[in-house]
Amino acid sequence: MSTVIDAGQVAEHNAKLQAQLQADYDALGGMLARRGQDIEELTSLAQGFAVAVPSWGVGTGGTRFARFPGRGEPRNVFEKLDDCGVINQLTRATPSVSLHFPWDKPTDAKELRDKAASLGLFFDAVNSNTFQDQVGQEQTYKYGSLTAGSAEVRAQAVAHNIECIELGKTLGSRALTVWVGDGANFPGQHNLRGALERYLDSMRKIYAALPEDWNVFIEHKLFEPAFYATTIADWGTSFACATELGPKAKCLVDLGHHAPNTNIEMIVARLAQFGKLGGFHFNDSKYGDDDLDSGSINPFQLFLVFNELADAALRDGAAFKPSYMLDQSHNVTDPVESLMNSAVEVQRAFVQAALVDRAALAVYQQQNDALQAAQTLKHAFRTDVSPILAMARVRAGGAADPVACYRASGYRDRVAGMRPAKAGASSSGIV
Amino acid sequence: MSTVIDAGQVAEHNAKLQAQLQADYDALGGMLARRGQDIEELTSLAQGFAVAVPSWGVGTGGTRFARFPGRGEPRNVFEKLDDCGVINQLTRATPSVSLHFPWDKPTDAKELRDKAASLGLFFDAVNSNTFQDQVGQEQTYKYGSLTAGSAEVRAQAVAHNIECIELGKTLGSRALTVWVGDGANFPGQHNLRGALERYLDSMRKIYAALPEDWNVFIEHKLFEPAFYATTIADWGTSFACATELGPKAKCLVDLGHHAPNTNIEMIVARLAQFGKLGGFHFNDSKYGDDDLDSGSINPFQLFLVFNELADAALRDGAAFKPSYMLDQSHNVTDPVESLMNSAVEVQRAFVQAALVDRAALAVYQQQNDALQAAQTLKHAFRTDVSPILAMARVRAGGAADPVACYRASGYRDRVAGMRPAKAGASSSGIV
Amino acid sequence: MSTVIDAGQVAEHNAKLQAQLQADYDALGGMLARRGQDIEELTSLAQGFAVAVPSWGVGTGGTRFARFPGRGEPRNVFEKLDDCGVINQLTRATPSVSLHFPWDKPTDAKELRDKAASLGLFFDAVNSNTFQDQVGQEQTYKYGSLTAGSAEVRAQAVAHNIECIELGKTLGSRALTVWVGDGANFPGQHNLRGALERYLDSMRKIYAALPEDWNVFIEHKLFEPAFYATTIADWGTSFACATELGPKAKCLVDLGHHAPNTNIEMIVARLAQFGKLGGFHFNDSKYGDDDLDSGSINPFQLFLVFNELADAALRDGAAFKPSYMLDQSHNVTDPVESLMNSAVEVQRAFVQAALVDRAALAVYQQQNDALQAAQTLKHAFRTDVSPILAMARVRAGGAADPVACYRASGYRDRVAGMRPAKAGASSSGIV
Amino acid sequence: MSTVIDAGQVAEHNAKLQAQLQADYDALGGMLARRGQDIEELTSLAQGFAVAVPSWGVGTGGTRFARFPGRGEPRNVFEKLDDCGVINQLTRATPSVSLHFPWDKPTDAKELRDKAASLGLFFDAVNSNTFQDQVGQEQTYKYGSLTAGSAEVRAQAVAHNIECIELGKTLGSRALTVWVGDGANFPGQHNLRGALERYLDSMRKIYAALPEDWNVFIEHKLFEPAFYATTIADWGTSFACATELGPKAKCLVDLGHHAPNTNIEMIVARLAQFGKLGGFHFNDSKYGDDDLDSGSINPFQLFLVFNELADAALRDGAAFKPSYMLDQSHNVTDPVESLMNSAVEVQRAFVQAALVDRAALAVYQQQNDALQAAQTLKHAFRTDVSPILAMARVRAGGAADPVACYRASGYRDRVAGMRPAKAGASSSGIV
Repeated sequence: MSTVIDAGQVAEHNAKLQAQLQADYDALGGMLARRGQDIEELTSLAQGFAVAVPSWGVGTGGTRFARFPGRGEPRNVFEKLDDCGVINQLTRATPSVSLHFPWDKPTDAKELRDKAASLGLFFDAVNSNTFQDQVGQEQTYKYGSLTAGSAEVRAQAVAHNIECIELGKTLGSRALTVWVGDGANFPGQHNLRGALERYLDSMRKIYAALPEDWNVFIEHKLFEPAFYATTIADWGTSFACATELGPKAKCLVDLGHHAPNTNIEMIVARLAQFGKLGGFHFNDSKYGDDDLDSGSINPFQLFLVFNELADAALRDGAAFKPSYMLDQSHNVTDPVESLMNSAVEVQRAFVQAALVDRAALAVYQQQNDALQAAQTLKHAFRTDVSPILAMARVRAGGAADPVACYRASGYRDRVAGMRPAKAGASSSGIV
Repeated sequence: MSTVIDAGQVAEHNAKLQAQLQADYDALGGMLARRGQDIEELTSLAQGFAVAVPSWGVGTGGTRFARFPGRGEPRNVFEKLDDCGVINQLTRATPSVSLHFPWDKPTDAKELRDKAASLGLFFDAVNSNTFQDQVGQEQTYKYGSLTAGSAEVRAQAVAHNIECIELGKTLGSRALTVWVGDGANFPGQHNLRGALERYLDSMRKIYAALPEDWNVFIEHKLFEPAFYATTIADWGTSFACATELGPKAKCLVDLGHHAPNTNIEMIVARLAQFGKLGGFHFNDSKYGDDDLDSGSINPFQLFLVFNELADAALRDGAAFKPSYMLDQSHNVTDPVESLMNSAVEVQRAFVQAALVDRAALAVYQQQNDALQAAQTLKHAFRTDVSPILAMARVRAGGAADPVACYRASGYRDRVAGMRPAKAGASSSGIV
Repeated sequence: MSTVIDAGQVAEHNAKLQAQLQADYDALGGMLARRGQDIEELTSLAQGFAVAVPSWGVGTGGTRFARFPGRGEPRNVFEKLDDCGVINQLTRATPSVSLHFPWDKPTDAKELRDKAASLGLFFDAVNSNTFQDQVGQEQTYKYGSLTAGSAEVRAQAVAHNIECIELGKTLGSRALTVWVGDGANFPGQHNLRGALERYLDSMRKIYAALPEDWNVFIEHKLFEPAFYATTIADWGTSFACATELGPKAKCLVDLGHHAPNTNIEMIVARLAQFGKLGGFHFNDSKYGDDDLDSGSINPFQLFLVFNELADAALRDGAAFKPSYMLDQSHNVTDPVESLMNSAVEVQRAFVQAALVDRAALAVYQQQNDALQAAQTLKHAFRTDVSPILAMARVRAGGAADPVACYRASGYRDRVAGMRPAKAGASSSGIV
Repeated sequence: MSTVIDAGQVAEHNAKLQAQLQADYDALGGMLARRGQDIEELTSLAQGFAVAVPSWGVGTGGTRFARFPGRGEPRNVFEKLDDCGVINQLTRATPSVSLHFPWDKPTDAKELRDKAASLGLFFDAVNSNTFQDQVGQEQTYKYGSLTAGSAEVRAQAVAHNIECIELGKTLGSRALTVWVGDGANFPGQHNLRGALERYLDSMRKIYAALPEDWNVFIEHKLFEPAFYATTIADWGTSFACATELGPKAKCLVDLGHHAPNTNIEMIVARLAQFGKLGGFHFNDSKYGDDDLDSGSINPFQLFLVFNELADAALRDGAAFKPSYMLDQSHNVTDPVESLMNSAVEVQRAFVQAALVDRAALAVYQQQNDALQAAQTLKHAFRTDVSPILAMARVRAGGAADPVACYRASGYRDRVAGMRPAKAGASSSGIV
């Protein structure tokens, strides 16, 4: 297995931080032991955690106003994989990559799969794209895709999704994520019910093309690019559609796709309860689909989401296996750094949720002791599990401090030399 | 049939306004005729419209900070019915009353039904109340009712709902509306999934007690009185629960119970599409469950809701019969005036929606002519149908200008003399 | 004065609609007369109304996900002016154009001014652009412009604004609108106070370059492109900065730049009261800076804004002269049609606000008669003033039905032939 | 100085936890030392922190739907002070109490001051109440108080505020907090500008009555009890009014009084920059003025607020002294427990903000290294300073674990016996 950053550099980096890490790890281990918790169990748990990296996330993102390119942006899917390889090499928490077609469409799928394997990576859910027109495309998605009034447009969009499944099969994926921007900018533009009927009709055709062991994830979003009414706007619509379609259809929760003030962890609980939680697009947001780095704005919310996931795992056991993916837009940071950091933040929430004393919590809940129930969660959330996460990385061959190690490696400078800027590189980053 | 305001006064009022009304009606009729629309059809449609009045709405409402009582507030359900009688007498759009138990619990249900009949009123959905403790009640709802951790609390709440059904049967109602304030103020206070499981368990018992021709309406609400997580917080949860319970369970949409920026008319379309639209609590709001007068803040939204209802009626025919109720809190106005005005505003939206040229709209939609599709709705909305509404009232025996007629009648002064203020009359108005 | 659409076509269009318009106008005139209002006064008022068209609005807009170009998009500022000429020709409500530099930077300002004059247009406020990098630009705005930590970046941004003023002087403008996207995507990225100090420092230099009779408008916006903290995020910050800068600095209100649930008409009232209301960017929105067509989502809100403007005009007289501009993104409609329609919608709100019986309103307010006060506004808003607006257009040489006339003229087909599509035409539409 | 809980009990409690606390403290001290930070400095800082307790907070709160009383609720201001005494005794972070008149109006102010002194307490800002009518009051506040159209109502409201100042002077307060619920439920109910003019006029009279060394704090709030337009709705209005009134007038920030998605820490930065930050009402919220326990919903936001306060303290030195108060409604918890916990949470944010490496942060900001700037804040926030807070309490004579110590003390049982429930005790808790 090739490593994109020299393994010796990583080892050297870890060696320098070893003493401090061990001391902090021991200090934390003592604190946890005094509460009756075993740090080694948590470290082992942390090592088992994985979240997929989005191929489009390694390019610099932007807004409708501007995109300010970064240095050394990947120009094709192979270069994107190199960046993803670095992220996993240093964090050991991102062994898989989620591709987006046609952006990442390979001429030779086998070659792409081999490339991934050479980096120790595999492919998570594939994503279709019917929210943009591609050069040479027959029908336009200007007025919708799976919901379009035109049967030709819908047929093209359905065919593209089925092609994504075919590509995904070759690449070893097991799921298709369908997000459509379809919707209306004006009251009256759509017959709201008609649009959803057409969506369901299109999705039934895509569903029929799913292999036996695949899932299709329906991703809802409140607004943007449609600004009056989005066809798949909320979890209720997503859930109703997934129910109509059948057991392979599940709902995908993006943390930035909800109305203001929405309690997202409760949506997670609801979807888990009704057997329709397919997975996540992790990121953070303050206003809308801001696609900020996971845990950067409201880390407690991320913890509460994982608290629900831990509850569901306890109830439903091995059957409960939602997909975890990052989905962020990195407008002002080095995307590799942001993705490494974000993977760690999601992993952090996962480990903190494991720290919750669920037996005590259940008792407090039964006693209506809201204060102590809340403190039971806060107690877990307050625990700084950084040494656990660092130790998990080091033990798995990753870096004690991924960002510092990455910066020291000179990777960005190296690829900046190898990847001259493409003009208007909109195929990466802006989603 | 007794009328609470002297019929002669109404006739005299109408006589004074007759010439102006007829002139405006004729002018509007001409404008509509030039667009190919028949004013008489619309007037006839308006006469068929009905929305229920909430018994609690005739008392003055308030907030957690204060309630400023009004003059002549009704002190019991019989006096509330008198006020409801006036509202229907003058608007001819509110022939039914929605009761709330135990607030309106009669000692003699037969007597109450007779009283209503004498006023030309009948009873719409009955409402249970498990969000307050009543004097002498065994179990407290402080920590929940249908979702409570305590089996005794749940049993009491279930029993109360079944009692409401029994009362409703005697009174001629055909539906039970269940709104619970159950939820959590702290992360951790509830096991979110456990709470909903208990809710469903409780509701199954209530559902089992429903007569064959009854419905149960599940009313969701984002927040208040619970401020972190409300068990039935959104239409998705309401829909999932209604689906679990069975065909008699449907969802009730209160226009103020949604997250900011929510597209409510799309929720209406979704529930209609999936056969679960039970009915409405009409009001208006700017921030939350403000319970303001219908159409006072965003009249175009009310129109768009009725635009969806018109679409559903066209698609589903006679089978489509959602219940319409007002649910408002009148803190600074005379509740009778606000309810009359609000009934008219809802009726206005209903008539305006009937003005939409649906054939043209469908063509514009198919042609992706968003601008003209939008204008087709705006054109209907812009039409000032006031003369139609007034004529419909006058023809049915109501008042051309209900508020003016009411004020001239001296009704409020009269009841103020007959109904001395009760201290702390919290059983009316504050919901 | 040249007209871009043949005047004979407009006359013919009007002739066809003349009888219906006159009949509707007379019917409405009768209704108004019965309420004591003179339709001629209102028509005359409507004729005096003007709102500026944004040069960037005549191109097709888009989102960060995609832009779907329209046919015949203007490729330079001269072609943009042609489109603006059509809009004013048919609506007679948009005699001025607001330019955006460097997008619209002329090589010969005199030639541009002559072109505008030949179309009967003049130039409203000019807009600077420091939210994008231009080809060949020395410093990048990736990390801010007027607030940037780098003195070189700030100097470049200040110089650009001063250049805009110089251009504007030549073109006959009287105001500079400054909107910056500056802000942070992460807590900690900015020292929040330091960023505003630098903003004020930069703005003082720009302010110093303003001619005696110019204003500078500060435009605030809650979020996008910055997603954690926007330096000029709300009217409070805008107001505080305008106060610091001096009397020529005023605040510009864009209807889509506020937090959810914000009462925008109250912000208008506040800025008017404290002498800092500079002007408007009209559009409509449901979620954020959606830039939808004015009046398409919440027409009552637009009316309430004009209700405040009417109140301020009454109080402050001729001294009260805010600038009116449209600022919309037309993603799915023909921009010329949307701008014509939107100008009419803004004009509609202006005329409806003039219909408010302010004497009666004041009495109701003093009597705490909230219901009748509200009805006084609703009464004006409900009045369908379409015949007044159409008559005002026809009398001024515009079209009775601008969209119908425009479509009949074949203008779009004509320019589609003359303006072959430019690849990636991002200089128009996306703002 | 009397202590309400037996000092021996506290000592015994601390003794039991001593070994674990010391071990955790040492472990944390080691971790901090490895980062170059001195735990003793932080502990000393923590000991200097103080936040005022609201007298109304020790009663059980409620909503407009219901209030579910707790056991042993205080029935008068003296009993409230006892509860406040316990809170400070165990947390050593709440030496002052904020009173609310007329709820807490003493018959003998001297006696009240002596009572407070005997408990080691003093009085922070006093609060006026013109949002409720009191028995026997001449004028009603139903339609407003300081903004009322009626001169008599305004005079009564002004006189009440001046009386509050007089009472405060006797009690040793130094500030008056003015929150009014004044506003409108309907468009048109208020002349928005007229209402603010009357507010300013009333406030000028109150301002004139302020002693030389007093401040008046203006508290804004978006909505509730007014649901369409609140006169003092946002920080912009608060700031403009404070500027109009003069240097003694400052703005008070309640964390639950903002529009959805508002960046509150930026408002804090703005008010600090312009010299108008008067103080805080700390609590937490998810939807509106939820008045939840501080730090229970979004602890990172609370940290970011204190991060701004630390920045301001660094810039402005000793001159920067905002007032800190809690303002919460305890509907489902023991108010004493919630207030103790909340005081600790606010103190936690204060200490965490002190952990921020401001020199490194400034460098990252200057370098546009957004990722590391953000991590610098997150690093401080992630640090679990619980042992520091506990040690600070123990050293000052408080309890290592205030809630556990309080529960063990049997205080609630004791007062429940001494304080039989008052019917309808609305004078406590519901604000």
